[in-house]
Amino acid sequence: MSEESSRNTRKVEVVLSPALFPVYFENIDCTVVVIDVFRATSAICAAFESGIDSLIPVATLEEAIEYKKKGFLVGAERNAEVVEGFDFGNSPLGFKDGQFKDKTIVLTTTNGTKAVDMAKSAHNVVIGAFTNFTAVCDYIEKADKDVLLLCAGWKDRFNLEDTLFAGAVAEKISQNLRFRNLSDSSIAAINMYNSAKDDMYEFLGESSHRKRLSRMNMEEDVIYCLTLDLSNIVPVLQGNVIVSNRE
Amino acid sequence: MSEESSRNTRKVEVVLSPALFPVYFENIDCTVVVIDVFRATSAICAAFESGIDSLIPVATLEEAIEYKKKGFLVGAERNAEVVEGFDFGNSPLGFKDGQFKDKTIVLTTTNGTKAVDMAKSAHNVVIGAFTNFTAVCDYIEKADKDVLLLCAGWKDRFNLEDTLFAGAVAEKISQNLRFRNLSDSSIAAINMYNSAKDDMYEFLGESSHRKRLSRMNMEEDVIYCLTLDLSNIVPVLQGNVIVSNRE
Repeated sequence: MSEESSRNTRKVEVVLSPALFPVYFENIDCTVVVIDVFRATSAICAAFESGIDSLIPVATLEEAIEYKKKGFLVGAERNAEVVEGFDFGNSPLGFKDGQFKDKTIVLTTTNGTKAVDMAKSAHNVVIGAFTNFTAVCDYIEKADKDVLLLCAGWKDRFNLEDTLFAGAVAEKISQNLRFRNLSDSSIAAINMYNSAKDDMYEFLGESSHRKRLSRMNMEEDVIYCLTLDLSNIVPVLQGNVIVSNRE
Repeated sequence: MSEESSRNTRKVEVVLSPALFPVYFENIDCTVVVIDVFRATSAICAAFESGIDSLIPVATLEEAIEYKKKGFLVGAERNAEVVEGFDFGNSPLGFKDGQFKDKTIVLTTTNGTKAVDMAKSAHNVVIGAFTNFTAVCDYIEKADKDVLLLCAGWKDRFNLEDTLFAGAVAEKISQNLRFRNLSDSSIAAINMYNSAKDDMYEFLGESSHRKRLSRMNMEEDVIYCLTLDLSNIVPVLQGNVIVSNRE
């Protein structure tokens, strides 16, 4: 693509670790998709699909404890486990029963909610997961801004599952001519998604986080998190609170 | 792989950007391979193959100017061009004539020499490029330490060509049972290399840096830098100076 035509298209960049976000975040007038497939962003999508009113993401356990003292329902996960004394963790299956319907809940996780916090000065910050894949792609196209696909990773390390989702989104939106200005990281993520898409579960068999979840008997969560389009809600950040885009 | 067997093998991790080096660098008793395929590490390999005695990598133009004042032959590249007033840049073809034979030269580049500087507290720091691929893999296996494959990238952004080389090395050494403890980033780099290896030139056609070099008519450099095993020398860092491993 020539430089001239690049100027008329939106940039699509995959940020492969939160530690790289400052390198790629050059312009607040963009859409940032926060991605933590196993399991924070899948859980947030499940929470909205189950009917919660809103979700307050917090980066630290200290903030989460403050909300708990004020009477909020608070979820906290560290190292893939529910932190003792909190109401729930980041399993998307924890929202199946609809017990949080119409409520405002609070959540802190090892990687995902920190990534939301980091991105919050961008114009549009949304929550992406395979479970709301098509809705997220539609949102991005309508917003018509440069796109940063922010992989939450694992403690600032690259991970496969978030990159696969970023690749899926980059491939889908780049079918629209407006979103054809792909960074090297987007090209790599698309290539990886195309290798994996016929059996993502198998492709992720050797990945660090899937092994971590397998040891903890969370295979059911893994399968849920790799399922496409269970929800057509896009959770969006408004100020410091995440709400549904459909209100 | 079980945790038990992981403990008996060497970790192989691809560091996808210098900005991620602090995240992955946990133990100085490791081998760091610095990778800047287009073109610093390919140029350093070419310089040693042409018979230079040693190379002093410096991170800044200020340091390079100091060496120039002392009478050294000094190369300096910024944004893919030779900096005015210096003796050479980072084109590997600049070393073809052997005019630097037995000399100590100084080099500073946009990305590569900064990555060397960052890695220098590790036990083994070596220079890797497609042009010394097999020699680097042999060196890693003999050193028998955990491995960090450090991609110099472009101004802290991920790039395709360095990751392809890292994937080629990770794949080759992981055929040795001792080097089977692969990070997610290594799995991704191997996957990408396997997609690209039949025609790396074509695969890189849309990459940011190849486009940059094409605009500058450096296709000959690109083809050189993608050629396997033109040298069996591994340039290694000793203190602040790079020397050949064959002395």
